[in-house]
Amino acid sequence: MMTTQDFTLSCPIPISEYPNVLLAHGGGGALMHRLIEKMIVPAFSNPLINERHDGATFNVKGARLAFTTDSHVVHPLFFPGGDIGTLAVNGTVNDLAMCGARPLYLSVGLILEEGLPMETLWRVLQSMRLAADEANVQLVTGDTKVVDRGHADRIFVNTTGIGVIEHDLAIGPQSVQPGDAILLSGDIGRHGIAIMAVREGLEFSSDILSDCAPLRDPVMALLDAGIEVHCLRDLTRGGLASALVEIAEASNLHLSIDERSIGVGDEVRGACELLGLDPLHVANEGRFVAFIPPHEIRPALSILQSYRVCAGAGVIGNVSEQPSGLVTMRSMIGASRIVDMLSGEQLPRIC
Amino acid sequence: MMTTQDFTLSCPIPISEYPNVLLAHGGGGALMHRLIEKMIVPAFSNPLINERHDGATFNVKGARLAFTTDSHVVHPLFFPGGDIGTLAVNGTVNDLAMCGARPLYLSVGLILEEGLPMETLWRVLQSMRLAADEANVQLVTGDTKVVDRGHADRIFVNTTGIGVIEHDLAIGPQSVQPGDAILLSGDIGRHGIAIMAVREGLEFSSDILSDCAPLRDPVMALLDAGIEVHCLRDLTRGGLASALVEIAEASNLHLSIDERSIGVGDEVRGACELLGLDPLHVANEGRFVAFIPPHEIRPALSILQSYRVCAGAGVIGNVSEQPSGLVTMRSMIGASRIVDMLSGEQLPRIC
Repeated sequence: MMTTQDFTLSCPIPISEYPNVLLAHGGGGALMHRLIEKMIVPAFSNPLINERHDGATFNVKGARLAFTTDSHVVHPLFFPGGDIGTLAVNGTVNDLAMCGARPLYLSVGLILEEGLPMETLWRVLQSMRLAADEANVQLVTGDTKVVDRGHADRIFVNTTGIGVIEHDLAIGPQSVQPGDAILLSGDIGRHGIAIMAVREGLEFSSDILSDCAPLRDPVMALLDAGIEVHCLRDLTRGGLASALVEIAEASNLHLSIDERSIGVGDEVRGACELLGLDPLHVANEGRFVAFIPPHEIRPALSILQSYRVCAGAGVIGNVSEQPSGLVTMRSMIGASRIVDMLSGEQLPRIC
Repeated sequence: MMTTQDFTLSCPIPISEYPNVLLAHGGGGALMHRLIEKMIVPAFSNPLINERHDGATFNVKGARLAFTTDSHVVHPLFFPGGDIGTLAVNGTVNDLAMCGARPLYLSVGLILEEGLPMETLWRVLQSMRLAADEANVQLVTGDTKVVDRGHADRIFVNTTGIGVIEHDLAIGPQSVQPGDAILLSGDIGRHGIAIMAVREGLEFSSDILSDCAPLRDPVMALLDAGIEVHCLRDLTRGGLASALVEIAEASNLHLSIDERSIGVGDEVRGACELLGLDPLHVANEGRFVAFIPPHEIRPALSILQSYRVCAGAGVIGNVSEQPSGLVTMRSMIGASRIVDMLSGEQLPRIC
């Protein structure tokens, strides 16, 4: 067993910097990014985890597989447009799709708090089954743990998924090229605001439904049509901003986007203004960005827009070489600014 | 979204029976068995989950894979012989081995409580890396969530694993045959008593180390040597008793064991007598049973005993047709009794 001395010698993040875990370490912003980059990836260091994609991809006996995991701790468990069960299935299905993989099988790890109403558990299980059927995946293995009252928050759900990659593309930040177009699949911010509306009892935003949805079908359609997809990333914690900053840093390229082309619903915009939130940082659970060469824009949009979940798809920007590693946005009034990850915590337990 | 009425119509466990989740629903005994059999498996019902094995096995593009998940909520996080990190890696490695699969890749889902000392996280990550290196698996993808203080217990770790099956055996309860010998890989009860000793401050058992260990090597050696393995099962929550009862029920055969052949260390036996526990129900994290035809006993034991983790391997009983679905044990004094799963909760949060 390691001693404290071993630890202080080898831990890559100085203890003095953040001696304890903060909520923001799970918020999808800069602190979480630092925790993962400086502590978790180095601890586990190997070529696959070093790729920093939504999931790992590898070959087993000639089959090219994708593998991805997500634990879900959303509060409240039930929200307009979904619940922890739909979120847990769609979240992992979407991460597999973002690897360019056809989602096949999911595992389910349940952590239940003593006293959880059996009815709540049953509703969550039913939601998971319905979401799995809709996404055409099977929930094939599971585990159930119970912790004593006060040591969890009713139910946490881990799902881990396996998908199969049936094309020869290398989809990921490393394949992004100068000149690529950046496509966004729809309006942003609905999941985060829907959760916050329930949590804070905001009357004005009671009609906002989460965008929680499986992205399997539109992504498979892009790939089946032979679109030359360079990178895919779904927008979850940290929103559009975190997804783009991560890709800019990993590809060492400049991503330039135009605020006027980014869809934000009126009610989401109103809620964001009232709460002092930037829609670019608000979580989504059914939106993604795709990086493709410019000659693929027309066929790609035509495919995406034929799916209800991507009806609002459009081009929001493009990729260039300099300033490398940065995301910049031309605002509504024409000014340009740097887009950053959120440094603190905006909305804890959004997924 | 489902209504309460839909639920009361369709939930397979009457709400009136257990309206809320109890600690015993996660204890590895009869209540957990019932929750899984009557609620979770029916909710997700599909041919793979219906097999009720330690993991699911399936083919993807010609590769035969095993897939298994475990969430870990052990309390305390650090105990004699291991910690939540070693447990999380070895638990999933062992479940893959019990499917007859060579463990390859693991995912890691972390749920952290706000305020967790960063040093504790680092120690757990280091333990996971060391355990992964020892078991020759790679931790390739992960997810980190943080929940607000008081809504988790410092750290929960889910690991989910993929392994490859490189033989033509169908390993599982369905392959158990009348006449099979039942092998046990070593003495039982050390993990559960080691945890309880720390938790309860038991002086007399301070020298008991958990048996937590990877079982990959001895199991792969059995398979590589061409031993005709019919079923493998590691003994975790619910102990030897739960593992055997589950196999007896799933195979619809009679398992007969001899108490004199089951190794229990003196300190474990003493602790069990003092605490009123039956060693058959106490959890293990580095022990398993193997069902093989009688002519394979000698080569199988010779292979197993060459590994330190299986040095105490021996035959503890055999399989017959009647009384079907039951486990019986001949005691030290020659009397025969039925072995049951524990109905209540013995040791919560053992893994």
